[in-house]
Amino acid sequence: MIDAPAPSAYAYPLLIKQLFHMSLSCSPEQEIVSGTSHRYTYRSFFSRVRKLANVLEKLGVTPGQTIAVMDWDCHRYLECFFGVPMFGAVLHTINIRLSPEQILYTINHARDDVILVHSDFVELVESISDRFERPIKLIYLRDDDSATPATYAGEYEQLIHSAYQDYDFTDFDENTRATTFYTTGTTGQPKGVFYSHRQLVLHTLGMVAGLSSVDSDARFHRGDVYMPITPMFHVHAWGFPYAATMLGVKQVYPGRYEPATLLRLIENERVTFSHCVPTILTMLLSAPEAESTDLNGWKVIIGGSALPEGLATTALEKGINVFAAYGMSETCPFVTIADTTGLGVDTSDAGISARTKTGKPTVMVDLRVVDDEMNDVPKDGQSVGELVIRTPWLTQAYLNNPEASDELWRGGYLHTGDIAHWSEDGTVQITDRLKDVIKSGGEWISSLELESIASTCDGVVEVAAIGLADEKWGERPALLVSIGNNDIDTGAMSDSIREAITASVSSGNLPRWAVPDTIHFVESIPKTSVGKVDKKTIRMQLNSE
Amino acid sequence: MIDAPAPSAYAYPLLIKQLFHMSLSCSPEQEIVSGTSHRYTYRSFFSRVRKLANVLEKLGVTPGQTIAVMDWDCHRYLECFFGVPMFGAVLHTINIRLSPEQILYTINHARDDVILVHSDFVELVESISDRFERPIKLIYLRDDDSATPATYAGEYEQLIHSAYQDYDFTDFDENTRATTFYTTGTTGQPKGVFYSHRQLVLHTLGMVAGLSSVDSDARFHRGDVYMPITPMFHVHAWGFPYAATMLGVKQVYPGRYEPATLLRLIENERVTFSHCVPTILTMLLSAPEAESTDLNGWKVIIGGSALPEGLATTALEKGINVFAAYGMSETCPFVTIADTTGLGVDTSDAGISARTKTGKPTVMVDLRVVDDEMNDVPKDGQSVGELVIRTPWLTQAYLNNPEASDELWRGGYLHTGDIAHWSEDGTVQITDRLKDVIKSGGEWISSLELESIASTCDGVVEVAAIGLADEKWGERPALLVSIGNNDIDTGAMSDSIREAITASVSSGNLPRWAVPDTIHFVESIPKTSVGKVDKKTIRMQLNSE
Repeated sequence: MIDAPAPSAYAYPLLIKQLFHMSLSCSPEQEIVSGTSHRYTYRSFFSRVRKLANVLEKLGVTPGQTIAVMDWDCHRYLECFFGVPMFGAVLHTINIRLSPEQILYTINHARDDVILVHSDFVELVESISDRFERPIKLIYLRDDDSATPATYAGEYEQLIHSAYQDYDFTDFDENTRATTFYTTGTTGQPKGVFYSHRQLVLHTLGMVAGLSSVDSDARFHRGDVYMPITPMFHVHAWGFPYAATMLGVKQVYPGRYEPATLLRLIENERVTFSHCVPTILTMLLSAPEAESTDLNGWKVIIGGSALPEGLATTALEKGINVFAAYGMSETCPFVTIADTTGLGVDTSDAGISARTKTGKPTVMVDLRVVDDEMNDVPKDGQSVGELVIRTPWLTQAYLNNPEASDELWRGGYLHTGDIAHWSEDGTVQITDRLKDVIKSGGEWISSLELESIASTCDGVVEVAAIGLADEKWGERPALLVSIGNNDIDTGAMSDSIREAITASVSSGNLPRWAVPDTIHFVESIPKTSVGKVDKKTIRMQLNSE
Repeated sequence: MIDAPAPSAYAYPLLIKQLFHMSLSCSPEQEIVSGTSHRYTYRSFFSRVRKLANVLEKLGVTPGQTIAVMDWDCHRYLECFFGVPMFGAVLHTINIRLSPEQILYTINHARDDVILVHSDFVELVESISDRFERPIKLIYLRDDDSATPATYAGEYEQLIHSAYQDYDFTDFDENTRATTFYTTGTTGQPKGVFYSHRQLVLHTLGMVAGLSSVDSDARFHRGDVYMPITPMFHVHAWGFPYAATMLGVKQVYPGRYEPATLLRLIENERVTFSHCVPTILTMLLSAPEAESTDLNGWKVIIGGSALPEGLATTALEKGINVFAAYGMSETCPFVTIADTTGLGVDTSDAGISARTKTGKPTVMVDLRVVDDEMNDVPKDGQSVGELVIRTPWLTQAYLNNPEASDELWRGGYLHTGDIAHWSEDGTVQITDRLKDVIKSGGEWISSLELESIASTCDGVVEVAAIGLADEKWGERPALLVSIGNNDIDTGAMSDSIREAITASVSSGNLPRWAVPDTIHFVESIPKTSVGKVDKKTIRMQLNSE
């Protein structure tokens, strides 16, 4: 269908190495900061990426093999984000918060050939290494001067230091697999997702085109200073290390997440752009050091869970430009971004509402809300259905799991498992996980909306809404409210939460039967390994009470 | 190299239809304005694109055929930008400024199957149609109520009106050719370039990622109102109709370019973003209506030729945020963009200098400045060489012209034919066309720099520098200066131009022998069909004097 190109015309495969062009041309002296003491330039970064390729080659790694990393967010991890796939190998970002048994499962399932292990995880690896199903070479990562364990092939810095510095990254098929990592379902074993070079490049272009073209102060631009507060093992830190590198943005990697360190880095390095789950932002804002830290103008994308209005208000009052975005491990992840058009940093009601919505689909996202038969539900801001999507950057399958893959992609769209409604202006609002929906008297009640209302009540640190089995109604809503270590009159608090929900019933936003029968108070709410509220555990606990 | 996707996983080919997702989801009521009287919404736009596909089908068009357009910039042309390639056909955007013989050549060379002809070009088409080398169906386009000529298959609006409104745009290979058009070399027949769906989608993503992520007021964003002032037949109006549609930006199409109409549209529709060649901006700013038009905050990208400092200053004084970008017909076109980082709209020297530079490579652009043997010249801001590039959006060849294609792509890089130097911060400065270089006493003199200096002198409307044959020195620089209809003392003006150039010699920016021996004054400077200075003609005229 296309005329023959000139024999020497360059076809330009979409490879991760191509993300370096602009930053190396225009920002070679731009800074990358790692922890509180280490910093270097993009020029050094790229030079070390080339050396890393030589290290892999010398180690006997061949293209197509899998290189895993167990590390905190740092410059070494960033180098692996680029060097491993650019070499033609697959980067497996191991979720270090999984249980040792789950980590072992993912190492064997991904067929890792090399693992880069931070000193903090050496014991863990030792405890499972006798059950590795294939020979695995280990490389030692350290932030101190501890000795490299005898069973390791070498220490990262020493290997880099002695590596040859020239390496010619060749072209290959853009559909080559670049990364893999595992989603942490609450049931069964973790499931592997994977992304090709083409998909990661397109995700980078799409997320930058979407985030940068926004008509508000919340936009991402080349003058920003970026720091992740979602771990790099979690959906490539939402793809930002690739986007920041493409644009030549200053990058700051905080090491292990410690509130005091994070806050100091934000202030000292003038960090302007981050992303995290609500729990982490809550933790940061309630750290003792937060009071004295200037967070004014810091832009923070909240994902992973819905952004509660209460948290948004608290953040805005600190001058933080906070807003929601939506995606998941299966989606690379960017799918929707909250609409901040024209919004400054203020706590007006309209702003809060727009910021905390699931958002609007970003460029190239074919998004639908469908019923069980894949028919579109009306875009009326009320009718709910499952969110299904197509973008050029969705995992094509679960790794070696055809059954789950077919289920994920039934009907040619990726099924998110999220229940949502949307409106004529494109605003999507997720009301529940398909499996978390509360169904009372045959009607659906949004657990997310109950949680959002309760979160605005004084003294509520965090809240989870679930359905409790009920003989008459099938299910009845219940709340689990975390009040931390505070000494609080839970009776009065129950009343004020019920009042707030009743007010929402009166204004027509919730059905009458959404007012929860039971409200439990706890010091903290059960979480999954990636810090999400663990509703499965909560349901089991409360239903058995 | 990649694990098997789920059988039903969607591969997401990069097709032009995919650019509609965000705007149709989020901005269905956004406006598109055509001329001074016609306006509709994105929803109607997309509906008419579907109808256009049905019109083509009914006409017997099949995928792979070529549909040409001869029209002014309007909503019909925009509909063809999308409808024709989305149908699977190739859009040939005919350069209506070529001579009838050249137009005939391109129609036959591109093997057009259908031509959409505006009433203004019916006579022209009639005068050449007996030499069409294949049967061609004609569709009539009109802005009045003139009768459709008998030999035409129908009138566009009537055909659209009676077309069925549902059309399911199917997927096909993303490498399918989407568009073709002809470059207007100053020698020989026009050469056809062509772009695939994949290339146009990647150009759209790349240009938006590049233009929107800029850290200055010059950025392109979703709140902009876009109007082209580079014709749609010229490199797809630099790709902006695709970018604007992807982002859901308000679009304004001005019809035939009349200064008064353009200025009225800018003011009435609050146009904020345009692009044009220097000549057009000069024309607009010197129109009588310019004085009373508020152009404050209007962003204008200048390309096609270098942006003279004099013009930049004049524009900035009107509050116009003007800056240069670089590309060509062969490059889709975006390659470099002037660095406006941190610049407001002011006339400070630093700003002028940054704005008028060729610019810095944008995302995904692999740019090199090389000598004859493809060795990189030093990035010292002085050493010159030819600019060669790779991006994912370069024409893969000249249509049916293997010899010129091989020459264009020799060594695996696209040869721009432009001479440039660049510096460590990525700033590229084109100093000449390879064929326009003035070589005096074995040394190169930049014709563009001579022109830029002369353009700042009072009374100079436009200027061209060329090399005149010289027995002793090989060539000696000469200037051709346009002073319009103004009554000017050309002797005094010659002196002030020579003084300005001598000042630049004193400050070390130009060699001593760059001061021109001859300065000619004319009412207007010869132009090519696309409005570029026609140096070939000037050289012939001056050398024969």
